[in-house]
Amino acid sequence: MKKSKPPKVLVIGAGAIGGFYGSLLAKAGADVAVVCRSDYEYVKQNGFIIDSHKLGTWVFKPSEVLKNAAEYKGTVDYVLLCTKVVPSIDRVALIRPVVTADTAIIFIQNGVEIEQEILSAFPDNQIISGLAFICCNQITKGEILHLAYGRLTLGNLPGSVSHKTMRFCKLITQSGIECTTTENIVTERWKKCVWNAPFNPLSVLSGGLPTLSILQSQEAFVRGIMQEICRIAEVCGHRLPDDIVDVNIANTYVMPPYKTSMLLDYENGHPMETEAILGNALRAANRSSITTPYLESVYALMKLRELKLGL
Amino acid sequence: MKKSKPPKVLVIGAGAIGGFYGSLLAKAGADVAVVCRSDYEYVKQNGFIIDSHKLGTWVFKPSEVLKNAAEYKGTVDYVLLCTKVVPSIDRVALIRPVVTADTAIIFIQNGVEIEQEILSAFPDNQIISGLAFICCNQITKGEILHLAYGRLTLGNLPGSVSHKTMRFCKLITQSGIECTTTENIVTERWKKCVWNAPFNPLSVLSGGLPTLSILQSQEAFVRGIMQEICRIAEVCGHRLPDDIVDVNIANTYVMPPYKTSMLLDYENGHPMETEAILGNALRAANRSSITTPYLESVYALMKLRELKLGL
Repeated sequence: MKKSKPPKVLVIGAGAIGGFYGSLLAKAGADVAVVCRSDYEYVKQNGFIIDSHKLGTWVFKPSEVLKNAAEYKGTVDYVLLCTKVVPSIDRVALIRPVVTADTAIIFIQNGVEIEQEILSAFPDNQIISGLAFICCNQITKGEILHLAYGRLTLGNLPGSVSHKTMRFCKLITQSGIECTTTENIVTERWKKCVWNAPFNPLSVLSGGLPTLSILQSQEAFVRGIMQEICRIAEVCGHRLPDDIVDVNIANTYVMPPYKTSMLLDYENGHPMETEAILGNALRAANRSSITTPYLESVYALMKLRELKLGL
Repeated sequence: MKKSKPPKVLVIGAGAIGGFYGSLLAKAGADVAVVCRSDYEYVKQNGFIIDSHKLGTWVFKPSEVLKNAAEYKGTVDYVLLCTKVVPSIDRVALIRPVVTADTAIIFIQNGVEIEQEILSAFPDNQIISGLAFICCNQITKGEILHLAYGRLTLGNLPGSVSHKTMRFCKLITQSGIECTTTENIVTERWKKCVWNAPFNPLSVLSGGLPTLSILQSQEAFVRGIMQEICRIAEVCGHRLPDDIVDVNIANTYVMPPYKTSMLLDYENGHPMETEAILGNALRAANRSSITTPYLESVYALMKLRELKLGL
């Protein structure tokens, strides 16, 4: 059997998520370059240190460190987009310079209804939507701490699994992290939103409470938000399992103390994924004329908070 | 005509509200003593300085400054209760030592459904419920700044206006501040709650936005909360005017930049009137089985905020 050439990957947005999954691809033999704006000089010199509670500690030296995708020479098999989904970041513009006919675009990002922008801009490319179930933070320049979990779920849009997706999945698995594929990745995105929609904003609006305290104090309110997400998903054609709220509540009770990504962004003065997680869900609700007052409330308060912060 | 003896008043909770209205009573000739716990030594020495944009600046020297009501010698005609309504303050215990058969109990306080506790404890006394429409802050020990407005509205419980109330009202009016009486003071309390229920918690949860910014950014949400208060008031037998939400919105657009009392308490690390304003309204809604999800959301978030602050 002919051994295939190692795939060429360009990671755009090499923070905690991009750096971690990029490092796994490199470990499995892929040629992994990164676009890294904020820590460019440091990462070009030193690469990344990955400190994983599950896999140990290693250095990830990207094949190239670039300031933007236009600097990339040659063609990539995969462009892996791992930025935050916030209004100030133009996702299409970031990846466009490196996308050719054969490029598969993978995004590992939070939020719902974030697909159309990419689908419209690149109608002839394979678009792979990815969800990371991971607890992973960048603790300092080029240093990524992988605390727990790690599973990646991938699926082509609108709903299939391609060979390229399978191949990508294998590379992640080879490096020791679970990767699954699904023909219903859009449904999976709504499932993840069931947890994100309450806990991300509540951690910020409470002034920094961990998830367990939020749940112990206001379980009914958390459930109310979760149920609204389920109803929106259903009218959008993605009926979620009947027990999904109960399962999310039970899992959160036994999770280690956890700071949500929105809380980390808030504490660091970074833009938050309010629109990707809450705004998009609410717009989907409004399209379908269902009322979701808990979600509306949380969204309104997040907008006020952002206004106060000048975000 | 025989000139009646000046009435004896004991003010309990001599912060901005108690100090200001107490000073007006003294100006009009009443014998006004105060219970003043936090600034006792200072006020005993110096009295209060009242700095009013409307009435000028003067010194208010109470006839007595006490640490608690039990120290009061003799009997009072009026006990004027002006503390915050928060779970850590036992309002009944504060006034009990000084209440005799002829004492009228007046409370000038925020919140809805705060009457029963006092009515139950003193079933044979005149109980007068008061609402202050005033912008007034204690800026330092014994110094009270009266910025704007000032109207006091009084009414006996459950629904009348007594001679004692009229007499009290006259003293306030004599000193230059509007005072009105009403036979429906409980309805007035719900009316005031229409404004307090959104703006107080939203100013805190937004991280300190002034009322105008809140309104400009999230008017629909503010209206949603106001409408829920109107519905609760109605099922409690207090139908509010049809245009009350519109009037409140319009008035707030032309109000000077204003920090709510809850925001001031929050910034000073003091307990907030979450239960008196939101909790009591919500409990009234639950009794009547109407759903008020916006109010529920705001209440849940305030409870999380208090939990984080250790309040």
